[in-house]
Amino acid sequence: MIYLDNAATSKTKPDEVIQAVIDAMQSAGNASRGASNESLSSDRIVFQTRKKISELFNVSNPRQVVFTKNSTEAINVALQGIIEEGDHVITSCMEHNSVLRPLNYLKRDKKVEVDYIHIDENGDLKYEEIKGLIKLNTKVLVLNHASNVTGNINNLRHIGDICRAKNIIFIVDVSQSAGSFEIDMIRDNIDVLCFTGHKSLLGPQGTGGLCVRDNIYIEPLMSGGTGVHTYDSYQPDRMPTRLESGTLNAHGIAGLGAGIDYINSKGMDKLTEKATIFSKTFFDGVKSIDNIKLYGNYDTQYRAPIVSLNIADMDSSELSAILSDKYNISTRPGAHCAPLLHESMKTVDQGMVRFSFSHQNTMEEVEFAIKAIREVAEEENSTTI
Amino acid sequence: MIYLDNAATSKTKPDEVIQAVIDAMQSAGNASRGASNESLSSDRIVFQTRKKISELFNVSNPRQVVFTKNSTEAINVALQGIIEEGDHVITSCMEHNSVLRPLNYLKRDKKVEVDYIHIDENGDLKYEEIKGLIKLNTKVLVLNHASNVTGNINNLRHIGDICRAKNIIFIVDVSQSAGSFEIDMIRDNIDVLCFTGHKSLLGPQGTGGLCVRDNIYIEPLMSGGTGVHTYDSYQPDRMPTRLESGTLNAHGIAGLGAGIDYINSKGMDKLTEKATIFSKTFFDGVKSIDNIKLYGNYDTQYRAPIVSLNIADMDSSELSAILSDKYNISTRPGAHCAPLLHESMKTVDQGMVRFSFSHQNTMEEVEFAIKAIREVAEEENSTTI
Repeated sequence: MIYLDNAATSKTKPDEVIQAVIDAMQSAGNASRGASNESLSSDRIVFQTRKKISELFNVSNPRQVVFTKNSTEAINVALQGIIEEGDHVITSCMEHNSVLRPLNYLKRDKKVEVDYIHIDENGDLKYEEIKGLIKLNTKVLVLNHASNVTGNINNLRHIGDICRAKNIIFIVDVSQSAGSFEIDMIRDNIDVLCFTGHKSLLGPQGTGGLCVRDNIYIEPLMSGGTGVHTYDSYQPDRMPTRLESGTLNAHGIAGLGAGIDYINSKGMDKLTEKATIFSKTFFDGVKSIDNIKLYGNYDTQYRAPIVSLNIADMDSSELSAILSDKYNISTRPGAHCAPLLHESMKTVDQGMVRFSFSHQNTMEEVEFAIKAIREVAEEENSTTI
Repeated sequence: MIYLDNAATSKTKPDEVIQAVIDAMQSAGNASRGASNESLSSDRIVFQTRKKISELFNVSNPRQVVFTKNSTEAINVALQGIIEEGDHVITSCMEHNSVLRPLNYLKRDKKVEVDYIHIDENGDLKYEEIKGLIKLNTKVLVLNHASNVTGNINNLRHIGDICRAKNIIFIVDVSQSAGSFEIDMIRDNIDVLCFTGHKSLLGPQGTGGLCVRDNIYIEPLMSGGTGVHTYDSYQPDRMPTRLESGTLNAHGIAGLGAGIDYINSKGMDKLTEKATIFSKTFFDGVKSIDNIKLYGNYDTQYRAPIVSLNIADMDSSELSAILSDKYNISTRPGAHCAPLLHESMKTVDQGMVRFSFSHQNTMEEVEFAIKAIREVAEEENSTTI
């Protein structure tokens, strides 16, 4: 198979990541549970990965890095733990359901008000709307860094500056950019960063987390054993323990740490450049095909290596199925968990077929995918004439 | 190191478990995200493990098996998703903080009433108290199967029968027994079963979940992308999607499935018998040592392979450190996240040193641990005289 669904998960993990997981599965005890060699070995794995993440995103302190099972959990922890009854929240129409649905529950159950920054026909944020949406009770602005559908990248620094000036807590979902693009919590005035480990960070599934500024208090969503302060009735207040209950996934976290090492050793820019060339080559190869519809802004300096498209009025699931069955190409069709984006871009019924690239792809794969799209489009165009 | 902390996590995973994780890390896509081969391969991994779990615990249907990152998350999902303002809950003094702390938050924030079944001097539940604690608004009885401190096992069937007769939802934490003892949701009238994957189920860390009876509705604790029903404002209602948001840990779940296969192929009874013989040999070897204090009931047919002890008034951390430094034996000292148990057994200050055994241990290791305890006790006794 030619795997062009890297935005869903990076498929083949580097050997170093796999080895780190194997090593942990053969040696690690339970982190923070006593002072046995095995428990301490697990502690070291977890701490080292916290440190690598804090360096990667310029987090003030490794203790402000909290591990969760995925970015969805991280976003739920952040939103549910910060937003209170009567607060106002700003988000955007390009968000994933991992942001939209928790906000819908807060609207329903806690009388939270939510406003949405609209997007233009290319899927870009209408930045000019932001200031007008801010109210006296605006507590949080939550936004993704890169769209999982169009690959468009938001200017975090610009928005972070607005939030800081208005004392609004800035929460960013970097699921589609962590490990590919430089993210700097301090420079960009980000208060909470939610990441996943299994995409461009090249770690195993079951990893992710949130990085929290020192001065941001998040009420725990879950509580339980922490290995410390057993006699406290509630979750211990110190970070990261406050937001981490039960046994940590030290096996996965070992792999995540190795993923970050791999990226650092190869050079994040170089890996991203490779994926970007594939993405751009694909875009250039398909853009002039008759009846092709392409979504997103391709005239920007930076974008995630994603190309979403449709052919005429063909159902996206049908196109994706043909690519899979006839050409052995894996893509993702449908609605991509981003309902407001599809409403904005008028693709609710059709969905989109997303091609997402990685440094692990090859130019031959890209050329073959272009050829496949051309053939399917020609057939479709000849049928519909 | 002689690893006698198996109740914290089983350390060396079987080769089959490691291989399953490697295979998944080299091939699995993102489950429920489209119909590409890689996504479907991940779907199959996840479904097969759901099926194995449903067979292991006699769950009505694999779709009623929900994956979480650990049992703590599973317990939080169950308690926070079922218990409402003004409800009454019964639990026990032998519970872990994974049960006690979520209940403390419900007491504080939702005016939930909680009563605790006491334990006797051996750490056994005072079953005779249960009926007297039931009130008109008792909604839930939540209990562990085996104590993580004493190894004592509760009679689930007896308690399940009481719950069913009174229409009380019976939630059971099987963290210390899943994979070692037969658990039957239907026979024992269990409504929600919360399990962890990384202990006796021999799976990787980062795995766990809850099994839910068909007729039990659990409100989601988290929401987000589900790969299906993108345009629903809230989490889709169907199980297990209702309680699973974001990317599943298919890599870990592959290993968990292999862990269950390993247990089934070797015979759960045989593995447990081996661990039980080690535990009993250890108990018999140390019970007559001067000034030894042993906790738990050793006169029962079944118990988890755990022996917790102290020597005279020696701090449990000191004893555990000597065992580690001088004898290379890994144990766990302290309070074991079970505050009410330590209060009941008057070991708040001293803690306990827990020895927990697995089929992976050897009789030589057990004999050596007995010798170590004898030597430390003799030295301690001679010093204090």
